[in-house]
Amino acid sequence: MVTGMEKPYVVGMDIGGTNTVFGIVDSRGNVLATDSVKTQSFAKIEDYVEAVSSKLRPLIESFGGVEKIKGMGVGAPNGNYYNGTIEFAPNLPWKGVIPLAALFEEAIGVPTALTNDANAAAIGEMTYGAARGMKDFIMITLGTGVGSGIVVNGQLVYGHDGFAGELGHVIVRRDGRQCGCGRKGCLETYCSATGVARTAREFLVARPEPSLLRDIPAEDIVSKDVFDAAVRGDKLAQDIFEYTGRILGEALADFIAFSSPEAIILFGGLAKSGDYIMKPIRKAIDDNILKIYEGKTKLLISELKDADAAVLGASALGWEVRE
Amino acid sequence: MVTGMEKPYVVGMDIGGTNTVFGIVDSRGNVLATDSVKTQSFAKIEDYVEAVSSKLRPLIESFGGVEKIKGMGVGAPNGNYYNGTIEFAPNLPWKGVIPLAALFEEAIGVPTALTNDANAAAIGEMTYGAARGMKDFIMITLGTGVGSGIVVNGQLVYGHDGFAGELGHVIVRRDGRQCGCGRKGCLETYCSATGVARTAREFLVARPEPSLLRDIPAEDIVSKDVFDAAVRGDKLAQDIFEYTGRILGEALADFIAFSSPEAIILFGGLAKSGDYIMKPIRKAIDDNILKIYEGKTKLLISELKDADAAVLGASALGWEVRE
Repeated sequence: MVTGMEKPYVVGMDIGGTNTVFGIVDSRGNVLATDSVKTQSFAKIEDYVEAVSSKLRPLIESFGGVEKIKGMGVGAPNGNYYNGTIEFAPNLPWKGVIPLAALFEEAIGVPTALTNDANAAAIGEMTYGAARGMKDFIMITLGTGVGSGIVVNGQLVYGHDGFAGELGHVIVRRDGRQCGCGRKGCLETYCSATGVARTAREFLVARPEPSLLRDIPAEDIVSKDVFDAAVRGDKLAQDIFEYTGRILGEALADFIAFSSPEAIILFGGLAKSGDYIMKPIRKAIDDNILKIYEGKTKLLISELKDADAAVLGASALGWEVRE
Repeated sequence: MVTGMEKPYVVGMDIGGTNTVFGIVDSRGNVLATDSVKTQSFAKIEDYVEAVSSKLRPLIESFGGVEKIKGMGVGAPNGNYYNGTIEFAPNLPWKGVIPLAALFEEAIGVPTALTNDANAAAIGEMTYGAARGMKDFIMITLGTGVGSGIVVNGQLVYGHDGFAGELGHVIVRRDGRQCGCGRKGCLETYCSATGVARTAREFLVARPEPSLLRDIPAEDIVSKDVFDAAVRGDKLAQDIFEYTGRILGEALADFIAFSSPEAIILFGGLAKSGDYIMKPIRKAIDDNILKIYEGKTKLLISELKDADAAVLGASALGWEVRE
C-alpha cells in the first residue's frame, strides 16, 4: 500500500503579457524552482506550448518526473476556469479561444486547471499573503494590463461563465484612451505600467517644463523610468503618479460599492512605487467614497513576491485538479 | 406536543423613499394582506415606527396575533443585515444610524431582521420570480433611487460590513449631477424615476422644440408623465428615455465585468416603460461590453409585482430570524 505523499509537488504557471513564469511547488507552498519564457516571442500557440514544455520537462524530471506531480495550475489573462481555455485575451499573441489546459495536459502529461491570472494571484494572497483569514477582498494586479480577482464569502467570483472580475476593463473615461480590447477608456489604459508610460508621453507633449524623462526617447519610457525620476524629485514624474493614482482611486471607490471588501490588495510593480502612487490613490478613494463605506476598506500592498504570488496561486489549483 | 405550523406567517416590510408597504405572508409566498404609510410624512423615527405599528398590529391580530408570526423581515435603503440598522440613508427622513430592527421588535413583539431593500427584492426574485434557479444575477431597482442586490454563487453579496451592492452610487459622470448622498454624478441621479424627471427639466430648458411635457409645470413633472408623452409620440420624451437608457446600459456593461451574471433583472416603474427604455439599454450594453461577455448576460424585467416583490423578499428573511 502506498500512503501519503507519493505525489508531493504541483506545477504553477503564470502567463503574463510579457513573461510566462512556471515553477515546482511543494505542499507547504515553497516555490522550489522556476523558469520562464518571453510570452510575446511565440506567435503560434503550438510553438509557445513547446517552448514552455521543453523548459518545464527537465525541471519536472529533476524532482522525480511526472509521477511526482499531482497537477498543474495555470493563471492566464482571460482564463476560463470552467473550460480550461484562454478566450480573446487582448494582451496575448493568440487570438480567439485557446484550449490551453488541454494543450499542456497533452504536452506535459499531468492534469491541468486554469484560471484568470489575477484570480490565481488572489488565491495565492488568500493562502499565503495579506488576505489570510479574509472572506471579502479584491485583488488588483497592476502589470502590463490591470487584472482583478474578487473574493466574496471566501469564494472566488467566477460568474456564470467563468470570466467574472475583469475590472481592468471597467470604463473610467468615456471616449478615453484606445484599449487593446477594442474599446475606449478602460481602467488599464491609465493604470497599468503601460498606462503610466502612456501618460508620461502625453504629459511630455502637453507640458513645457523640464523633466528628467526628456533624456529618454519617448517611445522607450517605461513606468520604472517614471518612478526613478519621481524619486529624484522630478515634478512631472510625480504628477504622472498623481494622475494615475487619482484615476485608480476613483475606480476603487466604485468597486467598494459593489462588494464592500474588507481590503483591496494591490499587486505588481506599480504598487511598489510607495507614496508616489499610494497617497493619491488613498486621497481619491476618500474623496469619492460613499459615506457608509468611509474608512472601512483597507488598502494593502501584496505581501508576496511578484513572481511567487502568481505561481503559488496558480499552483494551488494544481492540488485540486481531477486526475 | 405541538407540531408544524403553529407560527404559519411572517411579516414582510418594504421601506421605500416614498412609501412603506408591509404585509402578512404565508409559507407558500402568498401575500395575504398589505397596508402602507407615506415614509416622508414622519420626520422623527419614533413617530414613523408608531404609525406603521398602529396599522400593522390590527393586521397581525386579524391573522391570529403575534403568536402566529414567525418573524418579520424588513427591506430598507442602506439597511445593514448584520446589525439590523439603517445607516445614513440619503433618501429617508432619518439621519445617522437608526436601530430599526430593534425598534420594531419592541413595538410589535416579533423577532425582526433587516436588509437592503434591493437585496430583499433580489431574494424575492430568486425565490418566486425571474431569477429562479440562477446562481449569479444582479437585481437593479429603479425607484426614487437606484438600488441593487447582487447574488454570487447563489448567495447575497453583503460584503464585510453588510453594505455591499450600492450600485446606484457608482459614479457614472465625474462632476455630474448633485446626488442626495453628497457626491456628484451617481448613477441614481440619472437613472432613477427622479433622475428621469430631472433629465426632463434639463431637456426642456436646453431644447427649443415643442413637447407635450411643456403643458406640465416643470417642477411637477414625474417619470410617468415622460412615459405617457413618449407613448403619444413625443420626440423629446422619447429622447429622455434614450438618454436614461444609454447611461444605465453603459453602467450595466461595467457591472457585468465585475460578477459576470447570468442575468440582470430590472425592477420598478421605469423598467415597465417597454422599448422606450429597454432598447437604448440593450444598445448601450452591446456598444460597451467587453468582448468575452458579448451576448451572454440576459437583460430581464422582474416577474413580480412591484409591491409584492419587495414585501415577499423581505418576508423571506422573517422565516430565518432567531426567536
